[in-house]
Formats: sequence, C-alpha cells, structure tokens
Amino acid sequence: MTEARFDVLCMGNAIVDVLTTVPDTFLSQNGLNKGAMTLIDANRAEELYGLMGPAIERSGGSVANSAAGVGALGGRCAYVGKVANDQLGEIFRHDVQSLGIHFETGPLLGGAPTARSFIFVTPDAERTMQTFLGACTELTPEDVPEDLPASAKFSYLEGYLWDKPQAKAALSKAARIARAAGREVALSLSDQFCVDRHRDEFRTLINDHITVLIGNEDEVKSLVEVDSIEAALPLLRPMAGMIAITRSDRPTLVLRGEETVEVPVPAVAKVVDTTGAGDMFAAGFLWGLTNDLPLAKCARAGQVCAGEVISHIGPRPDADIRAMVRAERGL
Amino acid sequence: MTEARFDVLCMGNAIVDVLTTVPDTFLSQNGLNKGAMTLIDANRAEELYGLMGPAIERSGGSVANSAAGVGALGGRCAYVGKVANDQLGEIFRHDVQSLGIHFETGPLLGGAPTARSFIFVTPDAERTMQTFLGACTELTPEDVPEDLPASAKFSYLEGYLWDKPQAKAALSKAARIARAAGREVALSLSDQFCVDRHRDEFRTLINDHITVLIGNEDEVKSLVEVDSIEAALPLLRPMAGMIAITRSDRPTLVLRGEETVEVPVPAVAKVVDTTGAGDMFAAGFLWGLTNDLPLAKCARAGQVCAGEVISHIGPRPDADIRAMVRAERGL
Repeated sequence: MTEARFDVLCMGNAIVDVLTTVPDTFLSQNGLNKGAMTLIDANRAEELYGLMGPAIERSGGSVANSAAGVGALGGRCAYVGKVANDQLGEIFRHDVQSLGIHFETGPLLGGAPTARSFIFVTPDAERTMQTFLGACTELTPEDVPEDLPASAKFSYLEGYLWDKPQAKAALSKAARIARAAGREVALSLSDQFCVDRHRDEFRTLINDHITVLIGNEDEVKSLVEVDSIEAALPLLRPMAGMIAITRSDRPTLVLRGEETVEVPVPAVAKVVDTTGAGDMFAAGFLWGLTNDLPLAKCARAGQVCAGEVISHIGPRPDADIRAMVRAERGL
Repeated sequence: MTEARFDVLCMGNAIVDVLTTVPDTFLSQNGLNKGAMTLIDANRAEELYGLMGPAIERSGGSVANSAAGVGALGGRCAYVGKVANDQLGEIFRHDVQSLGIHFETGPLLGGAPTARSFIFVTPDAERTMQTFLGACTELTPEDVPEDLPASAKFSYLEGYLWDKPQAKAALSKAARIARAAGREVALSLSDQFCVDRHRDEFRTLINDHITVLIGNEDEVKSLVEVDSIEAALPLLRPMAGMIAITRSDRPTLVLRGEETVEVPVPAVAKVVDTTGAGDMFAAGFLWGLTNDLPLAKCARAGQVCAGEVISHIGPRPDADIRAMVRAERGL
C-alpha cells in the first residue's frame, strides 16, 4: 500500500446552514419534528424562510463539518460534495478550501441552487433541521475521482446521501475503491430517521464495506431495531470492526471486537446549540485514528471537539480545537 | 403635521457581513487599517476572501443594523437601501423584513452583486472592515418614495453614502422632504475617515438639514478638526439641535443647546466583537427619542443595545433587547 495522500476523505451533502433561534412553540405551530433532519422542497423552503426571523448563514453539511474539524485539527483532508455555481456555493467552497482541504468537485451549472438547511435552535440548545437539498442531489459517481478513495487512510461517508440514488451510487463507488486499496471506510449513520429509511441498505453496506461505524445511541438502536443500548451492543459488535457510539453527556462507547472502551464526557460550561456535535465528535475520533492514538484518546479528542462546537451557535469550530485537543492528550 | 406612519426611516448601504477572527498579524501583513472601514473593489474583494479563513455571513450595513435594532425594540421602522437580485440580496431582505421593517427598495437587476463587508475581528474585539459596495452604489433619488421621509418621525441617514454621488443625492432628497414636512433628520457620521473624506459637505448638510447628529468621539473631533473632546464640544454645540457622542466605555455625552447630559456606560462582562456597537447605540437612542424619553434614558437605551451586540460575533442583536431596555427604564 502506497503512502496515503490524505488522512480523511469526507463525502457528504454540501449545505449552507441558515441558523436562527426560536421558542418551542415555533416548532409545534409549524409541525416540525424536534431534533430531527427533515427534507423539504423548494416551495416549503420559501415558506419556512418567510416565517423565520433574522438568521446567520454558516457553511454546514454533516460530514463537511467533520472535514472542517479534521482540517482544523491539522489533518490532511479532502472533500467531495455538490454545490451550485452561486453565491452560497462560493461561500461553502471558500469555507472548506480556506482550511487547506482539497475540494475539487465541480459545481452544478444551471440547475438547482446550493443546498440550505434551516436550523431552528430552541432554548434547550436542541436543533431541528429542515433541509432543501438543491444541488446536492446531483452528486454522481462521476464526481468521485478514482484515485481519491484509494489515497486516503479513511473515507468517511454521510448516511444522508442514501436519500438520493445517484449520490448513494457515488458513495458506494468510493467505498469499493477504498476497500480494494486496503483503506478504512467509515460511515456516519446521520440521523435515526435516516436509519429508519435505509436500514436494510445500511446493513448491507456496513457488512460489505464499513470498517468504522459512527452514530449516536438512537441511530445505532434504530439500526438493530432494539429499544435499549444494552440489547443493541451484542447485535452491533459483529457488524463492523469498530463502532463509536455517542450518548450526549453520558460516556461514549467504542466497540472493537469483544472490547468495549467507555469514555466519560468532560463537562461543558454552557450548551448553546447542539448543531454539529456528532460531526465534530467524528472529526476528533477519526483524526485520532489516523494518528494511531489509543481508542480512549480518539474518543476524548472527539468529545473535546464536540464540546467546543455546542458552546456556540453554528456547526463548525470557533476556537482553536487543535490546541484544545493537544491539551487533552495527556489522558 | 399628520400622524407619523413610521418612527424611524433608515437609509444606508445594504451589506452582508462576512465575519472572521484573525490575529493582529493578519492586519499588518495585508496592510489593513485597524478599526476603520476601507472601500475595496471587486478584485481586492476576491483576493482578500482567498486569504481569509472560514467565515460567518450575517446581514449588516451600519444604518441597516440600526433599523434592525429599532425593529427589535418594537419601533415602527422603514429601510431604504440597494441590494442586487441575488442570494445575498435575498438574505439581506429577509433579515430586514422578518423584523417587520418596511423595505421595498427594488433590487438592482443585472448589475453588480449585493455588497459585502469582510470584517476581521482581532483578539481585542476590535473590528476592521473591508467593504465591496457592489449594488449599494446604484442607490439613486428614484429609490426614495416621496411620501416616506414625510411620514417618519425621524429619518436616519448613513454618512457612508456620501462616498457615491447618486446615493448622496438620494439622502439629500430624503432630508429635504423630511424637513419640509417638519420631521427630524438624524445623521450617522459613520467613520472618522469618512468624515475626513466629506468634512465640508457634512458640515453643510448638518447646517441645512440635520437635527440630531450621532457619532463617536473620533468622528466628531474629525468633524470640527480638533484633537480633544473638550475643545470639540463648544464647536459642535451650535451645529445641530442635538448631538450624541459615544466614547467606548467612557460616559456618553448628549448635547442639546447649552445642556450637556453625561451618561455612564454599564459594564459589559466580555467584549467579543465591537461590530455594530455604534449602530446599536443609535437604534436605542433614536427609539428613546421617538418615545419622548428623557435624554439620559435615550442614551442608556442605546448603551444597553450596544452592550448586547458587542458581547457576541455579529452586528445585530441576538438577545431580546426590548426586554433588556425595558428592564433599564427605571433609570
């Protein structure tokens, strides 16, 4: 196996977040499913935007957030995702490339605009997402250069892309190439409702290609269709070589064969907005793996990154997470 | 005089801010004038964007920020400013209109894109602005409906618009209509370098039309060309019926005839980003005037709004400034 050119290749929906704070009544009045990511069409996007107050725009997209995290940690990172040839697309591209991340996916010309996700943050810091996928849905296997998955230690795939056949085909292609080259392939389960939609396909994908599975408690329980994490663990264990399970402020679990590593979560002074928590955990965890750190340190790196991002509005780091993670490495 | 339809009509450059944090060395390496607003062209904008890290996009524009503040305080507000028919223009329009602010200026079609201001926030919370005016420069007198300045208690004009002849003509038109209708006209001095560029015209404008002048210490000193605020006060006093002077964390001064009201500034726990401080002071101050509050209370309302906006990234309020100002009214 040749020397890897990248630590992590990230592939996902290229989205600009439109973040605003709302009272809980806003969610109930507009029939929004709290805590979940719901796909909406262009008309509903226009309608919701008309209902919401002033917002902040910030590049997002689940696995793109992870890419930003890996880049901010100093990892060598590449990204594949589809924006349109418009202002939001330029913003997204800038924010990824300015972190030194390789991002050469061509923009969609003359089609749907760049994706946006309206993110409603409630006083309890929970985020509820309504996503118009726009140009994202036009990601195709042709957007995956043959040499990219083969030259990255890890390919990290976004489960949300299973919502569109062409995008799914693009990720499957990347997974096949990566595994054929002897590389690791990680999957984000993205969202429990996403797992509900694609459970059987996810199980097949995981069985065929995935070496590292990353999800939260609700997502992994949905994957194996049981109600308790205790019942889920023995079912999950044989599915992938390594499984990292985040559980909000309860200890993170990492399964590897029969081994279980349980890592308590450091306290966060004030949780403002949980957007990006799982994405930043994945960034720190994968960065740790690419640096051959012990599993507990990988998980702690993820926790530190997640702790930073939930302490402010927006899904990407504001503070110097590289220094924060380095300070924790004495773990 | 008929009943006013609006409390404040705000007119200014319609800008989307692109905010990022940088070390001081970034400013020196790129020859940026710390603390100032500098105009840049499209090429320089592209170059600077390529040099800067990930950013947050948020609607800005000095007097547009004040409009957002007046709207958030519950004032009846209108806005006149020029965006393009593009995504950033839609974002700007949404963020203004979603506060219930009347904003009907038609977008520029097929011309320059919506203005953006790159705002570099240094660790000392100072902001340095590099602004590409784009569509803003196409604001013309035709964009000022005859009935608007006549139907607002106050028209609030942005000094920055003197940088472009047509925009200047638009504001002069509004000032003339407002005064002819017996309304108040307020001017923001915007920036000490803006005052340097337009000192003589500003003096003529103030003499002819302005009843309320708003600026910080550096701006008013530049206006009367003296080095100390003590020397400036007697020169300023006869220029306008009322003059409000902000002085960072030192007491705000309000001059009215021979009267001087000095209002100490409440402490702010942590200053994060001073972007919008002057704009939000103006919002609270004008809102107080439209509610016939005593001058000290007007100034305090302005200080409370400014205190909120400097405690987070971005030029517009995050918290409920209406409740915050109401809590201070026992002053």
